[in-house]
Amino acid sequence: MSLARVQNFSISLDGFATGEVQSLETPFGHAGERLHEWMIATRFGGEMFGRAGGSVGVDDAFARQFDLGIGAEIMGARKFGPPGWHEDPAWTGWWGDNPPFHTPVFVLTHHQRPPIEMEGDTTFHFIDASPAEALETARQAAGGQDVRLGGGATMIRDFLAAGLVDHMHVVVVPILLGRGVRLWDGLEGLEKDYEVEATSSPSGVTHVTFTRAGA
Amino acid sequence: MSLARVQNFSISLDGFATGEVQSLETPFGHAGERLHEWMIATRFGGEMFGRAGGSVGVDDAFARQFDLGIGAEIMGARKFGPPGWHEDPAWTGWWGDNPPFHTPVFVLTHHQRPPIEMEGDTTFHFIDASPAEALETARQAAGGQDVRLGGGATMIRDFLAAGLVDHMHVVVVPILLGRGVRLWDGLEGLEKDYEVEATSSPSGVTHVTFTRAGA
Repeated sequence: MSLARVQNFSISLDGFATGEVQSLETPFGHAGERLHEWMIATRFGGEMFGRAGGSVGVDDAFARQFDLGIGAEIMGARKFGPPGWHEDPAWTGWWGDNPPFHTPVFVLTHHQRPPIEMEGDTTFHFIDASPAEALETARQAAGGQDVRLGGGATMIRDFLAAGLVDHMHVVVVPILLGRGVRLWDGLEGLEKDYEVEATSSPSGVTHVTFTRAGA
Repeated sequence: MSLARVQNFSISLDGFATGEVQSLETPFGHAGERLHEWMIATRFGGEMFGRAGGSVGVDDAFARQFDLGIGAEIMGARKFGPPGWHEDPAWTGWWGDNPPFHTPVFVLTHHQRPPIEMEGDTTFHFIDASPAEALETARQAAGGQDVRLGGGATMIRDFLAAGLVDHMHVVVVPILLGRGVRLWDGLEGLEKDYEVEATSSPSGVTHVTFTRAGA
């Protein structure tokens, strides 16, 4: 069974997945890197950024599930680039020549363009599709493996509202952003469809997992 | 030093301290008792409700700090009764003849009335005061002990915004209420003034404590 999974999705204690205003210089707005420091500090984060060392405790154990068993990713248009990226034909994402996905990645956008093949087996595809259609497309590309739902918050909310998420790993970072894009809006009663577990870490973050019955 | 402390203050994962609509029959609106089941299940909760037994793990350890070293409480008008309670001269709170406070309790309200002496050393005082004034009054009544800030969320936000909170224990319950009264609104950057710790419990809740430097 190919699951639809959210991994390493960080939010502030008050529920924001990004601050504002997002731009080329500030991909997460006034949040800066604070939502992701926990991950960067792990050994997994070190490997991702070409740095030696890093923590190997609970944060690393969760962080490593990012690519375990994943055969494709779907991401929202706002994750792929700053506002207006679709007007720049040379834009190939934030992640340099060798992005950390190493699978097909389907970018949900109304502005289609030809696929972009990057180093390290990442290929960006640009599709205009509903959540269900996008998941079907990504599953075919994943070759029987799971599909990662990469965010941002708006895209994950859309997939949750459509009942398409099998597993979700949210990391609550103990900061209050006060403004930005909220993850939880409009999801009253979501917990009824999932087993929810919380695991706090010495780093200060809390890992919250939602697992659908049978998934 | 007499601290101003928030204890056992429960919110949903999406940040609501109560659901809606609040009434005599539904003090927490559509949230029902779900935000407080973790506390009721502890041995401390058992003692409070005259029931034997209960859990004695991390939830109980936190719950018991509710009255340790507390000499007075301040609560908002919306905690004391349902909307319109001030029009009923016979209303003496939700808690029966022997409320669980056992200290002076200062109810912040524009509708003053004479103090009400209850069993078990709880006396309700009704005052129309700013957060700083109310804290000064409660500290005098607390005889050198700490003052508990009892909620609801609006009242706690007012005290946080005024910089009057020394210690805050928030319990994040893994449910999504979707609507109600939010705790975190307008508190961007609050963590800068506090040490924040998170402790998850086997019950599924996460205890988050804010402690001010030096407090």
